[in-house]
Amino acid sequence: MSKRVQVALLLTGNELMSGDTVDSNSSRIAHALAAHKIGVGKKITVGDDPQLLSDSLIELCANAEVVIINGGLGPTEDDLTADIVADVAGKALVDHPKAIEHLEAWCERRGLDLNPSNLKQALLPDGADLVANPIGSAVGFALEVNGALVMTTPGVPVELTAMLPEICDRVATRVGAGTAFIRRLQIFGIGESTIQELVNARSDDWPEGVTLGFRSGLPQLELKLQVDDAALLDNRDDAETLLNELIGDHILGNDDDQLAMAFQRALLEKKMSVTTAESCTGGLIASLITREAGSSQVFGSGFVTYSNTAKNSVLGVPEATLIKHGAVSEPVVLAMLSGALEKSGATIGIAVSGIAGPGGGSDDKPVGTVWMAWGTKDSHRAIRLQIPGSRERFQILVAAIGLDTMRRQVLDLPAIPHYIQRFIHRPS
Amino acid sequence: MSKRVQVALLLTGNELMSGDTVDSNSSRIAHALAAHKIGVGKKITVGDDPQLLSDSLIELCANAEVVIINGGLGPTEDDLTADIVADVAGKALVDHPKAIEHLEAWCERRGLDLNPSNLKQALLPDGADLVANPIGSAVGFALEVNGALVMTTPGVPVELTAMLPEICDRVATRVGAGTAFIRRLQIFGIGESTIQELVNARSDDWPEGVTLGFRSGLPQLELKLQVDDAALLDNRDDAETLLNELIGDHILGNDDDQLAMAFQRALLEKKMSVTTAESCTGGLIASLITREAGSSQVFGSGFVTYSNTAKNSVLGVPEATLIKHGAVSEPVVLAMLSGALEKSGATIGIAVSGIAGPGGGSDDKPVGTVWMAWGTKDSHRAIRLQIPGSRERFQILVAAIGLDTMRRQVLDLPAIPHYIQRFIHRPS
Repeated sequence: MSKRVQVALLLTGNELMSGDTVDSNSSRIAHALAAHKIGVGKKITVGDDPQLLSDSLIELCANAEVVIINGGLGPTEDDLTADIVADVAGKALVDHPKAIEHLEAWCERRGLDLNPSNLKQALLPDGADLVANPIGSAVGFALEVNGALVMTTPGVPVELTAMLPEICDRVATRVGAGTAFIRRLQIFGIGESTIQELVNARSDDWPEGVTLGFRSGLPQLELKLQVDDAALLDNRDDAETLLNELIGDHILGNDDDQLAMAFQRALLEKKMSVTTAESCTGGLIASLITREAGSSQVFGSGFVTYSNTAKNSVLGVPEATLIKHGAVSEPVVLAMLSGALEKSGATIGIAVSGIAGPGGGSDDKPVGTVWMAWGTKDSHRAIRLQIPGSRERFQILVAAIGLDTMRRQVLDLPAIPHYIQRFIHRPS
Repeated sequence: MSKRVQVALLLTGNELMSGDTVDSNSSRIAHALAAHKIGVGKKITVGDDPQLLSDSLIELCANAEVVIINGGLGPTEDDLTADIVADVAGKALVDHPKAIEHLEAWCERRGLDLNPSNLKQALLPDGADLVANPIGSAVGFALEVNGALVMTTPGVPVELTAMLPEICDRVATRVGAGTAFIRRLQIFGIGESTIQELVNARSDDWPEGVTLGFRSGLPQLELKLQVDDAALLDNRDDAETLLNELIGDHILGNDDDQLAMAFQRALLEKKMSVTTAESCTGGLIASLITREAGSSQVFGSGFVTYSNTAKNSVLGVPEATLIKHGAVSEPVVLAMLSGALEKSGATIGIAVSGIAGPGGGSDDKPVGTVWMAWGTKDSHRAIRLQIPGSRERFQILVAAIGLDTMRRQVLDLPAIPHYIQRFIHRPS
């Protein structure tokens, strides 16, 4: 009988309920299984409550082929996992000789005596099969429970990670491999509803068996192409081709690619280098560029000129220009850009000056106003934008737009796409 | 009838199952509810699968007084939440006038036209009550379903956070609230087990009714002082006084205070200003300083000198020094500091040069090596540290240590506390 869910996770521990611990173990398990093309269908998380634990285990065993329990394998009283599994399986807890061997070897390596707390960890449900823990004292085990394969794993991430290869092999043997094939694309400057509309308008061309999914973030959007039938795997390429046609200039790359990495690739391809002249972003653009490994190939120097004095002394913006037009103005960002290009010797650059807030706005230039200039010595432009939202959002978006405008220039893509139009200041 | 669980969470989204996204939203919800002394009893996480979603919702409604659903409120086809809730509640999906108003206002603020995808978000179960989303387009709602109060919330963290005060009030009204009085302190450079030991050693002086809690992050640690009995509220002051005595130089401030804000306050108090000369952190230190509102009072300019050429041309590090000692060396960071102080006119500064990795290491200077110089024209020092871990962790920790060493100098605190000692390179 095929069940609704291949693999379910039961995560235990009060710290997961209080919010003090973010659950990263289920990501580790899901990623390890994904490499075997096996998906996790359902997760239940409960505290150290025997009744909730056993109710949840019963429910998951009824609906999943494999249940992986994470946590509750330690030596203390709130470690309930072995008890609960034995209880639900209708087995007695018995001393497990191999588990005792494991604990003895573990203690010996550390020059410790085996104490009664440790020995509690060797009390396993009758018939349980050990899952090796090459690192820690916790004893993982596997047992058939109500028609499901139940495996227990420790909550300590490094121990869990060490046990995952064996766990994955056992899961793959049980369920057979091959479900979800997911390709992720990173997107900037277009929203999910717009993408959905563009795709809907071409629904005849959308390939069979490919599901489109989204995950929004700031500043990027992640788009996912999922295929459940291995025979239709190549259809992802067709979907990607269509997406390239529809929104190609917004696609940054695959997997976890960031805007700065897409920009770095573009610069390398064109043998160009970049500099930054930042006022209101205060070094964020340079920081995003240099967060990426390999950035020394495209970036030599950047300038954070927050004060007017610095704009003049560091980048050579004429004092008269600052006085006449103010720091947030077209002539100033153009002079900043020119100064940064000259001082750095880079081929392309960005200059931004704006009012991040919460203070510093005026009727004429409210909080959220930014002047941005970008380009090369011979080909550059400047625009005034109005970015709504908090100081944090302002800085994140200005930095992202700055990187994207340069990327567009390097790759000869449309310079001012719709998302930038939206932010352009229009005098009323 | 009292149910087994007060509040249950139903978390939806394929990205939560694939392991690509670590679920931090349930921590946000749990923390917000904890301030009302309300606990989360059970969490179920499933992908965008209608059957699994509705089975899970039915089960949670039977066992919990309140079910908070997170995710699946967007405009696209994989956003199933409203459908599922309507289906389980036996209600029709209808256009919700207030939701349409909300979407119209949201689009207007962004200069967008309301499109059919967006309008899908206004289709809510009949009888649903809006939960205000002050930031995003997603429409949260509340509805009685099978004896439970179901509330829906968006997956975008910033939108969820903005909605939590109303959500918590509604939950508290439903289940009855205790009140927890929590004061949060931000800590840097000391771990929770060390703090716990220091406090344990003074347990006689620890005030009645105050519970100490922790939440670890990178680079800061949050410490919580919780009082459940309002009559004992003043005891938090005594606890804070004792903590100041024990670990005062590690306490940055209250609430969400960041290291850079604590540093800004110190600079303002002493009427000082700061500059940065960054190689391996690539602008991150300047970016952290300027992320804080008010930074223009203490920061005029910073320099990102990633290449050797820039260290020479921008900061005046002698070419001979670079050639003789290499970019990652004491003479180079001292010359960078001196150049930055001179060019900026700031009173204190930081210079860092190191190997963030993954490439660029050598036997002599492996990945993770960093030279750091900080101080004023007349009083400065330099140290070589070895920071283990990824490129990202290296940059975060170097930037944080850089800010902290300057903060310590400005405030006359111990210059090299234990945590820095730990990282100091000791030639073997």
